[in-house]
Order: sequence, then structure tokens, then C-alpha cells
Amino acid sequence: MELIVYLAGQIHDNWREEIVNKARDKKLLLKFVGPQTNHDRSDDIGEAVLGKQPSNYYKDDAASSINNFRTQVLMQKSDVVIALFGEKYKQWNTAMDASTAIALNKPTIIIRPENLIHPLKELSNKANVTVETVDQAIEVLSYIYE
Amino acid sequence: MELIVYLAGQIHDNWREEIVNKARDKKLLLKFVGPQTNHDRSDDIGEAVLGKQPSNYYKDDAASSINNFRTQVLMQKSDVVIALFGEKYKQWNTAMDASTAIALNKPTIIIRPENLIHPLKELSNKANVTVETVDQAIEVLSYIYE
Amino acid sequence: MELIVYLAGQIHDNWREEIVNKARDKKLLLKFVGPQTNHDRSDDIGEAVLGKQPSNYYKDDAASSINNFRTQVLMQKSDVVIALFGEKYKQWNTAMDASTAIALNKPTIIIRPENLIHPLKELSNKANVTVETVDQAIEVLSYIYE
Amino acid sequence: MELIVYLAGQIHDNWREEIVNKARDKKLLLKFVGPQTNHDRSDDIGEAVLGKQPSNYYKDDAASSINNFRTQVLMQKSDVVIALFGEKYKQWNTAMDASTAIALNKPTIIIRPENLIHPLKELSNKANVTVETVDQAIEVLSYIYE
Amino acid sequence: MELIVYLAGQIHDNWREEIVNKARDKKLLLKFVGPQTNHDRSDDIGEAVLGKQPSNYYKDDAASSINNFRTQVLMQKSDVVIALFGEKYKQWNTAMDASTAIALNKPTIIIRPENLIHPLKELSNKANVTVETVDQAIEVLSYIYE
Amino acid sequence: MELIVYLAGQIHDNWREEIVNKARDKKLLLKFVGPQTNHDRSDDIGEAVLGKQPSNYYKDDAASSINNFRTQVLMQKSDVVIALFGEKYKQWNTAMDASTAIALNKPTIIIRPENLIHPLKELSNKANVTVETVDQAIEVLSYIYE
Amino acid sequence: MELIVYLAGQIHDNWREEIVNKARDKKLLLKFVGPQTNHDRSDDIGEAVLGKQPSNYYKDDAASSINNFRTQVLMQKSDVVIALFGEKYKQWNTAMDASTAIALNKPTIIIRPENLIHPLKELSNKANVTVETVDQAIEVLSYIYE
Amino acid sequence: MELIVYLAGQIHDNWREEIVNKARDKKLLLKFVGPQTNHDRSDDIGEAVLGKQPSNYYKDDAASSINNFRTQVLMQKSDVVIALFGEKYKQWNTAMDASTAIALNKPTIIIRPENLIHPLKELSNKANVTVETVDQAIEVLSYIYE
Repeated sequence: MELIVYLAGQIHDNWREEIVNKARDKKLLLKFVGPQTNHDRSDDIGEAVLGKQPSNYYKDDAASSINNFRTQVLMQKSDVVIALFGEKYKQWNTAMDASTAIALNKPTIIIRPENLIHPLKELSNKANVTVETVDQAIEVLSYIYE
Repeated sequence: MELIVYLAGQIHDNWREEIVNKARDKKLLLKFVGPQTNHDRSDDIGEAVLGKQPSNYYKDDAASSINNFRTQVLMQKSDVVIALFGEKYKQWNTAMDASTAIALNKPTIIIRPENLIHPLKELSNKANVTVETVDQAIEVLSYIYE
Repeated sequence: MELIVYLAGQIHDNWREEIVNKARDKKLLLKFVGPQTNHDRSDDIGEAVLGKQPSNYYKDDAASSINNFRTQVLMQKSDVVIALFGEKYKQWNTAMDASTAIALNKPTIIIRPENLIHPLKELSNKANVTVETVDQAIEVLSYIYE
Repeated sequence: MELIVYLAGQIHDNWREEIVNKARDKKLLLKFVGPQTNHDRSDDIGEAVLGKQPSNYYKDDAASSINNFRTQVLMQKSDVVIALFGEKYKQWNTAMDASTAIALNKPTIIIRPENLIHPLKELSNKANVTVETVDQAIEVLSYIYE
Repeated sequence: MELIVYLAGQIHDNWREEIVNKARDKKLLLKFVGPQTNHDRSDDIGEAVLGKQPSNYYKDDAASSINNFRTQVLMQKSDVVIALFGEKYKQWNTAMDASTAIALNKPTIIIRPENLIHPLKELSNKANVTVETVDQAIEVLSYIYE
Repeated sequence: MELIVYLAGQIHDNWREEIVNKARDKKLLLKFVGPQTNHDRSDDIGEAVLGKQPSNYYKDDAASSINNFRTQVLMQKSDVVIALFGEKYKQWNTAMDASTAIALNKPTIIIRPENLIHPLKELSNKANVTVETVDQAIEVLSYIYE
Repeated sequence: MELIVYLAGQIHDNWREEIVNKARDKKLLLKFVGPQTNHDRSDDIGEAVLGKQPSNYYKDDAASSINNFRTQVLMQKSDVVIALFGEKYKQWNTAMDASTAIALNKPTIIIRPENLIHPLKELSNKANVTVETVDQAIEVLSYIYE
Repeated sequence: MELIVYLAGQIHDNWREEIVNKARDKKLLLKFVGPQTNHDRSDDIGEAVLGKQPSNYYKDDAASSINNFRTQVLMQKSDVVIALFGEKYKQWNTAMDASTAIALNKPTIIIRPENLIHPLKELSNKANVTVETVDQAIEVLSYIYE
């Protein structure tokens, strides 16, 4: 049974590629989707489609509408959501995607480093599982197929 | 028609009191609810109820389960959610509460300072209205009754 | 049993006042809510709250976010929706409110003049009842209490 | 991942064909569905199935029931809805389909010319993305697959 | 705790009055609602509101739209549905109301005579409780308050 | 796009076979499912699985639980429901299945003879389309693919 | 703000009375509802309403239908569910009520003795909060009002 | 039409293998999924993924979060749920899975021995069908395809 996994979270390193490769190595029947990971493209997509905006505020609103469209399409097709929080940045999109997934009853795994335990405690408590590494998340996915 | 408003967000200043007072001054028929605003009490509630936990990780998980219980009870009774983001802190609970409210179709207002426009752009785009000040939020609430 | 009725539709004449008065004359236990009926206030509410916008496009988007917030709050509290289409204007808000109400399983009455039968035929078919006059709508509301 | 796109909106020009062709040129994995685009067939389908009706009013009601049946079947199968508003006509069906899609949490794109910004402002605000041209809508669809 | 009970079913005898009186005698905190019980009024309501229709077929469709509106309003306000089937008539409205209530997760009691056991077996199996007399239905309602 | 159609209604003639054949002749991409059409098997399935019951009442309840299980499985997989009412019998299962389908937002077609217009008027009004013959229902299904 | 609390679980001691009294002592604005706590009445209610059944199996099925009716009515009115597991008995009704409450998004507290930690671990993990004593549950309820 | 069946319940004998084999013998188009059936693996999965926990209580909570994740993923993909109760053990997970399935409108079959009739009576009454043997459950599944 193929499952679709939405990979929410930071786009500043290659953790998605790592998950995809490890799932392939374990021959898990998983298809992965996620947000636009080119940061500039993600920030500029509003103006790329709608044209020059009057200021950064409007540029951001235009970009976010298209990013939200993409996320909504792909998350609705997903069976599982994994949300990774990194050491840096505010990462409110990650919190938003994880919270939305939980509210929509999507089974959800959070990956976060140890030093984020406290600020993420309520969100972790609502997610199904919270782990610290990509390898642990793969183990949880793998467990579905045992 | 009385409406119940859940006030999500930071608990480090008195913005809730300010909203409650201004709504009373305008004689708006609003009842306000929200999270535990005593920060220590919020962090300690798990051990206060369940007893000493083996480490901070488990203390946090115990506290978060009771805080999430409280939030779920009160948000389900609410007609409107206001979420305020301040200048500091990670505020993932605020993002979680706002995202959950939106996913549950609760009409939602975000209050955030100008310098958070960019990191909050996707969440702002999903909320009904995003403003910068408590006074603006009160104006939006007041508009319901015009 | 008191019922709350949302009055969607054009804001260019006093049809809401007429319904409210006739319901009062018949002593129907109804409370009426609806959109902002001051047209200028409705168009200007965005800038009134959020400040001057760069152009009419952004002024409109700001206003619409607050108007949609108001409508969502009040429609969710309503037991019945009445949507009136007049002879003039595009009235897409009326169509939007009626369609949303129907999709949310709110019992819905449409009032429209005879010459709009054809362009409104699909929406009329989805509504519970379509009538031509305010008096007929009052008769339908009154029938609930017989 | 193949996605199904419902193309709501006017049936007086070939914009659907244009979208289908451009999506094919870009090799997007999309399947398109939509309403009956033969205007006479759409107006006559009620009498074609149910026989001669007593007047245009009943002819319209008969046709609309079958058109609504078709739309409900196809929109429920769709992952995305695009609604195009043209320069002319009342187009309440387009507003109805877009509003229904949004209420059902279908990710929704609106295409409308610049001069319809004001009358469509509330509906645009509720849709995920609003653009002015078919090419822009294709760019948004294409962005899902980047 | 007051509960609202929708009394679906035949309108050819005074069983509703009997239930209301017996509930009052037992001092149960219940409010009862139900369909129009004046059969002629129920059949004529369409023409009463919308005017003379071209034939009985259209007269029936007009009446049913207003009867369905009334039922939808009142059933949505109800906590419990009781549906009584009598010895005669097709009573498809009763079956429709009971089935709708069950699909909407309204706790449902069916009252039917012994000789209707077989034709109603699937519907009885889906209802919470099936009894043969009004007194038994009152006993079940009364049990809520024990 | 293949659609699944649940054929609810009487099992005393071969109308299902007629629909299946006509859909095949028109090369419509439809798969048909429906209830057990062997009447004795349908009545006896409870005792066949659960063993001899104390009386007809319990035999009926046992059978209905398994028939309802089957219907729930197959209707949940369906995109469209067609419910046919014949001239005879009480057919409350047909009314139950059609009402359940409508409450679950399944697009629904009712087929009923002219002399059942009056007793079925409220249910017909809630269905998407009501026709008198199998051929008309096939025309409506066929219209989806035009 | 008054909240309604459903008290699911064993009926073999007076834990409900204890909760009610302690909530009253703390002046918490809570109303408590729950199952029939007279064990014999609960087992006999089916025959009391429906008459003598052919065997214990049918007696049990009759009773359970009325008990389930009562639970569904009262749980749907509740804002919070508390489920208490005692040392003895199978208590599958308690597990059923807690699981149903969680699936319906009712905020849920489980009370269970220490030696039931292992067999209840999956259910505890899905509940909002799990405690060992009535006093702890009261503390959690009290925390809502701080 | 292939259906997916979730097999909830005890993991202490080979009843799942028996069902799978009998379904294959009857050439039923069924795919079976279920919980981790290696009891030790199920109890240890938390520590296997998250590392050594401070005590059995935390070990259990860690394991249950991953087991619940697995169950949620697989049950959401399922069309039918079968829950088997054996003679021994508390089996609250079985009761939890069956109750959750019923609350989510999954068609549900319970298998339980005769001596569990009384303690399972309310849950049996809510399930679609309750049988005593694996063979009977297979007969019910087989009936879908007749």
C-alpha cells in the first residue's frame, strides 16, 4: 500500500533528500511531497505570477497566497505529515503546517532538536510522535510496514 | 448577541487586559477566554497535578497535556480567535492556536508587529484579518456590531 | 424557539428593515443579522482599520478581509439565511453568501425578481426555497412557527 | 501525482481549451473536467430528459437540477477548482461554484479581468489565489509540480 | 438540561399531542417540534406562498420545498428525533426524516406497529431504539433523566 | 474518469441489469454496485450467518444488520446513487438509502412512476434529479461525460 | 461559562458523587451528566421498555440499545468527558465512551489506577490527560477556570 | 472492487492469518492490514525509536504513541474494520479501535466468544454486525461480493 508523505518544515538544508533516499534504501512504498524548497523562488512566486507589488508587504502576501495554495493541494493528498524544526529561524510555517495537519486528523510526526523541547512542548503533545532525527522518523514510517 | 473570543498568544505583557478593558469601554457584548497567563503556573501545571517527573522533558510533556486540554475546551466554545505575536520568543503555541482555529473555521484575527510581516506571511494570508495593534483588533470586533 | 436569520444581499434599499418590521408585526421569535449596510463604510473599512493602501486594488482587498470576517462570524451563528438579489448590480457577494450557506447546510431562502429567473436558475435549484418578494419570505419564516 | 482540476465559469469562449493545451505543453499531470460548455444543450437538458415543461421557469428549473447534478459529481472528484469570470454576463454560476469549492476546502484559483476587481473583492479574498489571465493560472498550477 | 425532540411521522392522528401531554405529566424537561400537522396546509403551502402552479406535479414540488425548509430548520435544532410509522400510507417522509436524522448522528427512536417489523427492519436496525407504542418512547426519553 | 454508481431500490424486477446494459451500450465508464438482489437470500442472511433466531423479529434484525453493513460499505465507495421506487411495496429501504445518500452529499437520482409523485414529493425535492424511467436516468448519467 | 461534563466509567462505587461534591466545594461552574448508575436498572431497561426477551442475549441487546441512546444524547451535549477505569471488571463501555469522545474531539480526561497503566497505554496516549485520582481530575477541571 | 480491511484485536493467536487465508480461498478481493502483531516489538517500539525511558510508564507512553500513529494511518485507509475479542486479557485497544472505527463511520464487524456477550453488549449494539467466529466474519465479507 503506497502512502503519500508531506514533508513540512525548513528549507535550508537537504533533510528532505535524506528522507527520500533512506526510504528508498529501505524499499518503503512511500511518495514524498512538500513545499517549494528554493527559498528565493518561494519568496518571489507572488511577483513572478502577479507582477511587481507596491512594497515588500504586498509582495509577501502575494507569495504566501500561492505557497498556501500549493500546500493545501499537496497536504490534502497526503496520508502522513512530517514536520521538521531546525535550530534557527522562527519557522512559523512549520508550526502552521503541523497544526493544520493535526486539526485535519493527518497522522503527524515532528522532528526537532533537543533544545527545542520546551518551546514546542504543546505542539509535540498534540502530534502523534516527536523525534529528534530523520533516522528516527524513517524508523516510525518503516514500522507501518512491519 | 454575545460572542466568545479566545485570546491566543504571548503571556508576557498585559495585552489581554487591554483588550478586555477597551471592549468594555465600547460596551461590546463580548466574553473573553484564553490560556493560563501565569507563565510559571503554565510550566508547572503538569507536576502540580501529576507529581514530580523524571526530567524537564517529561515535566514539559505533562504540563503541555493539561494546557492543551484547557485550550481545546475554551477554543471549542469560542466564536472568534485573536492571536497576538510579540517581538520576542518563538511563540509556536500562538502559531499552533491560530492555525488550529483557522482549520476549524473559527474566524481569526492576527495581531503582529511590522517586523514580523515576512516570517508570518503564510499564516497571515490564511487568517481572516491581520493587524498591528490591539486597537485595530478592537475596531474589527466592533465592526461586527455596527 | 428563537431563530437567528442572516440577511444576505444588496444594501441599496431598505428591504432588511422591511423584513424586520414585518417579522415583528407577526410576533415571530426571530433575530436578524447581516452585513454592513452602509456602502461607503463597507468599502472603506479596510483603510479605516489598516490605514491608507497603495491603490484601490489593495484598499478593496483590505476591506473585503474585514467584511468576510464579519460575515463568517454572523453566518455561523445563524439558523437560516435569506439572500435577496435586486434588479441591478453584479451582486456576487449575494451569490457567494447564498452558496456558502447552502454548502454549510444552512436552510436558505432566495428572493429574486422574475427577470432573474434564468441567470439564477442553478443557485435557486440548490436553495431550499426561492421567492420573489419579501412578503413571501416572511410567509416561509412564519410557516416554521405554525 | 495526477490532479483533477474543475474549470468553473463562463462557457462563451474557448478558455478551457486554452488551459488544457497549455497544461499539455508543459506536460503537467492534470486532468480537466467542467460544466457542459454547449450553452443550448445546458439550457435544454431539462426538457431533453424530462420532457416539455409548462413555461420557461420550469424549463430552467429542470435544466438546473441536471446541471447541478453534473457539477456536484465532478467537483467532488476534483483536487483543484479554477473559476473564470469574463467581462460580460451575470455569471452567478461561476460565483456559486467558486464559493461552494471554497466552502468545501477545495484549493481555488479565480481568474477575472482588472475591471471586476471591485465587485469580486470578497470572493477573491476567500479564494486561494486570484489572477487576471489563463497563463497566470497555468503558472500557479505548474508551481505545484516544481 | 432541556432537550429538543423532533417528532417526525404521520400527521393523521393525535400521537404528538399524546407525547407532549405524557412528557408534561412526567415533568420531563423536553421541548417538542415537528412538521406541519394540518395535512391540507402542508399540501397547499407551496401555492399559498408561490401562487397557482401549472399542475399537481408543480404544486407538490413547491409545497415540498417549503416543508423541507421547515424540517431542516427544526431538525438541526433538535437533540433527539422520534419517528412514528402508522398502519397506513406510504410514509416515505417519515422514512426520509428518520434516515436523515440517523445520518446526521441525531439519537433516533422509531415507533412502529408489530406488522411493520419486516418492511422496516433495516431502518429499525440503524435507529438507536425501536418501540411499538408512544408510552414506550416516553419511557426511553424519561430514562435519560433518571 | 470511472464513476461508481450505487443502485438502491426494489429487487423485484431486472431494472439493474437494464441500466448496466444500457450504460455498456453507451460505453459510459461506470461501475455499478447495489444491494443483495436475491430476496430470499437477503431475508435469510442473518440466520445463514448467525444461526436460527428465536422468532421472525430476531431473524429480521439479524438479516438487516448484515444488509446494512453491505450497503454502508458499497455506498461509501460510490460517487452517485440512483434509487428506483416501483409501483408496489412499502420500499422504505429505498427511501432510507436515498435519504442517507442525500445527507452524505452523494449526488442522487430518483426514478419513480408518475403515480408516486405525491407521496415522494419531499424526497424528490431533496434529490438532485427525479425521473420516471431507467432511460432518463441513463441520459442523466451520460450527460456527465458529454 | 458553564461547562457540561460527561462522567463515563464504572458504576460500582460513588466516584461520581465525589466529583460532583468536590466541584461544588470549589464553586466550579460545571454540570455533570453520565450513564444510568443503577446496575440492575441498566441491565433491565431493555425488557422494562420492550418486554420479556427470548434469552439473555436478546435482553442484553435490548438494554444496550437504550443505554447507547442515553449516552449519545448526553455526550453530544457535553463539553468535556471524564472516563474512570477501576481495578476490576472488563469496563469495555468505559473504553468505548472514552474512544468515542476522543474521535468526536471532546476534550477527555482518563482516571485509572497505576496498575492499569500498561493495558490502557494506547488509550491514555490519545486522551488529553490521564490521572490516577478523582482529585487530580478536579484539579484539571479547576485549571480551566484559573 | 478491492476493499481494505483493518483487523483490530488480540495478537496472541493466528486469527489474522486464518482470515487472510480463508479470504484468499474464496478469492475475495480484499487487502488486510492491522497492528503490529509481534507483542514484544509492539511494547518495545517506543524505546527502539526514542531510546531508553526513565521507567515502564514512560516506556509505555513512548510505545503507544507510535502504535497509535500506525493504527491511525492504516485505519484511515480502510473500508471495513473487524475487531476480534478473545477469552482473555483486558483488550482495551480492541475496544478503542472498534469504537473509533464506529465513530468514524467505518463499517465494523465484531468477533467475540459467547461468554463475552454481556460485557460487550453496548459495543456490539453499535457495531454493524457481531459474530462469534472468524468463519462468520468471512461470510459477512463474502456477502458484499455476492
